[in-house]
Amino acid sequence: MSDLQRSISDLVIANRILANQNVVDAYGHVSMRHPTNPEHFLLSRSRSPELVDQGDIMEFTLDGKVVGDDRRPPYLERFIHGGIYESRPDINSVVHSHAEEILPFGLTDVALKPMMHVGGLLGPTIPVWDIAEKFGDETNLLVVNPDHGRDLAKRLGQGKITLMRGHGFAAAGMDVQEAVRLSIYLPVNARVMTAAMGLSDHIKALAPGEIEIRRLYNPKASESWRAWEYWAGRAGVSDLLGPAP
Amino acid sequence: MSDLQRSISDLVIANRILANQNVVDAYGHVSMRHPTNPEHFLLSRSRSPELVDQGDIMEFTLDGKVVGDDRRPPYLERFIHGGIYESRPDINSVVHSHAEEILPFGLTDVALKPMMHVGGLLGPTIPVWDIAEKFGDETNLLVVNPDHGRDLAKRLGQGKITLMRGHGFAAAGMDVQEAVRLSIYLPVNARVMTAAMGLSDHIKALAPGEIEIRRLYNPKASESWRAWEYWAGRAGVSDLLGPAP
Amino acid sequence: MSDLQRSISDLVIANRILANQNVVDAYGHVSMRHPTNPEHFLLSRSRSPELVDQGDIMEFTLDGKVVGDDRRPPYLERFIHGGIYESRPDINSVVHSHAEEILPFGLTDVALKPMMHVGGLLGPTIPVWDIAEKFGDETNLLVVNPDHGRDLAKRLGQGKITLMRGHGFAAAGMDVQEAVRLSIYLPVNARVMTAAMGLSDHIKALAPGEIEIRRLYNPKASESWRAWEYWAGRAGVSDLLGPAP
Amino acid sequence: MSDLQRSISDLVIANRILANQNVVDAYGHVSMRHPTNPEHFLLSRSRSPELVDQGDIMEFTLDGKVVGDDRRPPYLERFIHGGIYESRPDINSVVHSHAEEILPFGLTDVALKPMMHVGGLLGPTIPVWDIAEKFGDETNLLVVNPDHGRDLAKRLGQGKITLMRGHGFAAAGMDVQEAVRLSIYLPVNARVMTAAMGLSDHIKALAPGEIEIRRLYNPKASESWRAWEYWAGRAGVSDLLGPAP
Repeated sequence: MSDLQRSISDLVIANRILANQNVVDAYGHVSMRHPTNPEHFLLSRSRSPELVDQGDIMEFTLDGKVVGDDRRPPYLERFIHGGIYESRPDINSVVHSHAEEILPFGLTDVALKPMMHVGGLLGPTIPVWDIAEKFGDETNLLVVNPDHGRDLAKRLGQGKITLMRGHGFAAAGMDVQEAVRLSIYLPVNARVMTAAMGLSDHIKALAPGEIEIRRLYNPKASESWRAWEYWAGRAGVSDLLGPAP
Repeated sequence: MSDLQRSISDLVIANRILANQNVVDAYGHVSMRHPTNPEHFLLSRSRSPELVDQGDIMEFTLDGKVVGDDRRPPYLERFIHGGIYESRPDINSVVHSHAEEILPFGLTDVALKPMMHVGGLLGPTIPVWDIAEKFGDETNLLVVNPDHGRDLAKRLGQGKITLMRGHGFAAAGMDVQEAVRLSIYLPVNARVMTAAMGLSDHIKALAPGEIEIRRLYNPKASESWRAWEYWAGRAGVSDLLGPAP
Repeated sequence: MSDLQRSISDLVIANRILANQNVVDAYGHVSMRHPTNPEHFLLSRSRSPELVDQGDIMEFTLDGKVVGDDRRPPYLERFIHGGIYESRPDINSVVHSHAEEILPFGLTDVALKPMMHVGGLLGPTIPVWDIAEKFGDETNLLVVNPDHGRDLAKRLGQGKITLMRGHGFAAAGMDVQEAVRLSIYLPVNARVMTAAMGLSDHIKALAPGEIEIRRLYNPKASESWRAWEYWAGRAGVSDLLGPAP
Repeated sequence: MSDLQRSISDLVIANRILANQNVVDAYGHVSMRHPTNPEHFLLSRSRSPELVDQGDIMEFTLDGKVVGDDRRPPYLERFIHGGIYESRPDINSVVHSHAEEILPFGLTDVALKPMMHVGGLLGPTIPVWDIAEKFGDETNLLVVNPDHGRDLAKRLGQGKITLMRGHGFAAAGMDVQEAVRLSIYLPVNARVMTAAMGLSDHIKALAPGEIEIRRLYNPKASESWRAWEYWAGRAGVSDLLGPAP
């Protein structure tokens, strides 16, 4: 199996996992940087992640143009992915989701913080990108051109997550497993913080030192593979798994 | 396949999607205006949406009378549908649901507002119809005659949604896909607003300009089909789908 | 099929529905008054409702004694059922459940009220029985003898529901369909009230006149059968259904 | 079947139940003290509980060393188990979980208390172990050596549960059925308390006398077996069940 075939299979696994874990529904998407051409990325045609198969994967340039003469409708918001790949050479996979658990944090002045060990991966600050700040309040909130994508990537900065006001989030990982992992534990961390705030005004987030350690992701660790294998099994795509590290 | 057969298949798909997405349970229903006779509408016999099949669809006049000599028991609340079709020629599909997420908004003086991009479809104001305002507090809360239906339609006005105090909601779409879409994202938007209010008294709804754009529904967009195809797949009725637009 | 066989099949259906609807888990139970001997009632042996089959049904006197030489372990709390049948000749089916949604109402001084049309069936007041009031605070909270059962029945009075502090609820129906229906919509009504109180201190319950009408249950209505048929289908026991009324 | 084979089958059942009941996800684990060598314990290799089979079970000394030449990667946090077995000869099974419902109680100064009869098993006080108290705020929050494990066990004391700040909980049972039971009802009890606090500042926990009675666990009771049989059925491992007591 070539690097490209392996990448495409991993991207299909990621689509199915995100659907099975209720991180995405009809909408939302996940991409990977092309394994041999860092100026391109791989992303499904406009299709719900639960239905995505190898044949659905298309190839794009970083400014969101289709590579080749593939005429199938792409996702409108592919510029989220391109914008992040352009500004962050260390990032090789991006997820965009509308997970409802995180939306309250973009609608209030309460900042989402890492509350639990698996939330430490999110990093110390989780910014909110509001499309209206730069583009005014007459957009449809979607990231539909390279300018939108670059502005979002600027708010992401050197972090792994940015919330998107009234819309969802973008998660950026060093590989597809990290991007999926961020996307699964971000909503869990949001639910925990929401519930804790219902109990008390004084809640204890992770300490800065704890976050520094927890934000490191090791793709070779058996702990990382354990989750990937489990999520793939739940999503019914164990047969697509590559070899354990 | 005739227009009528296509409509009936789409209506069966809509029934199954709403059940699968937990928008309706034993109760709730979805109708379509008759494709060739705008003075009639199509609606299942009294049956839970999850169980509805092509043979269950009956035909009604706008004041809720059964067309033909079909003797099967109809839904008591078919007047919700007739009332809306009568007052709104632009509406071709109606959903009625008891989705619990929206009920709190009819029981308090807190107005439900669009909080997220997919909630923009709901429009700028989401009124509450209280049957007791006109009919007193000795009803069984159900919409069981044309007067009830017309009063409800009046509160709906030119909007797409009206909540029904202590009961549920009615959603009105230009086609069955829009009515289903409204019914799926209305409860999501309500959950997001409920959670946000638990975090802070100051929450930011969509801006008026954003709602103006988001409330437009394009039945031909690949984004619309993407969701319909996904929901049908989850509900196990992919085989009933018509051709993609 | 004899009356007794029909009753036993209906009781199996009820067990499976309550498990499928998450009203009961490993614990909780549902009984019926014996169809030809009103001094006896039918109840499964000590088994989780999801696993109950026709052969598991035992027969008891109203003070909880096993009829015949059936040596299988019965439920410890069969006295809930006997106590209610003894004091209420109009009641022919009883459910006991630990549904967590209703527990907060027994632990605070906030009274649960009917908030929605299907909640009207619960009646105007939903009392809380606290075993400690009469039996002190050194019980295991269970209803394990006829005295406990009679005290509970006294708190139920002429109503259909009593909450049980720190434990769950008992629901009393004129037939098994009503008892199941009460048990399904009681937790829904509790969730709606809990969410509404999170939005505002001023919430509007059903009006007294609305409750008077909604508390009436008609076992012959097609609306009643519609739900029973649907719930049985979800629970995988459609094949046990009797004929529609 | 030998005692060891029986123990291993019970441990596989426990793994599958905890996954099926959403007490564990990709992470979390359950162990048993070795049935014939109390200085050893049994625990799966590093694998998600839903996927654990008989062949995955490894054997460890109480200080977390692998017994024999098994080279498969073990769980990093096996020291939770060893630490508790070392300090508590009465404990024969331990569960570690990240169940999100309990996390808010470790992040605020609100103490989790038994609110319901099945919560009485948890005992009168449910302490929170904060790794930072002894080991500072530059850990990764995990229990990765015998010192961590012993410090956790000290906080557990003679109880059955300790919460772990920003991480999860550890539950200690006299046998594997009690450890699983604690782990299932702890999150339920936490949800009930969280919801009750949303209704009122004055909530009534179980009385001390009630807790004293409810904290006793009887492995031979038909009530205990009823739940174990039910949970195993839901998890699809009924075929592994031993004989009823």
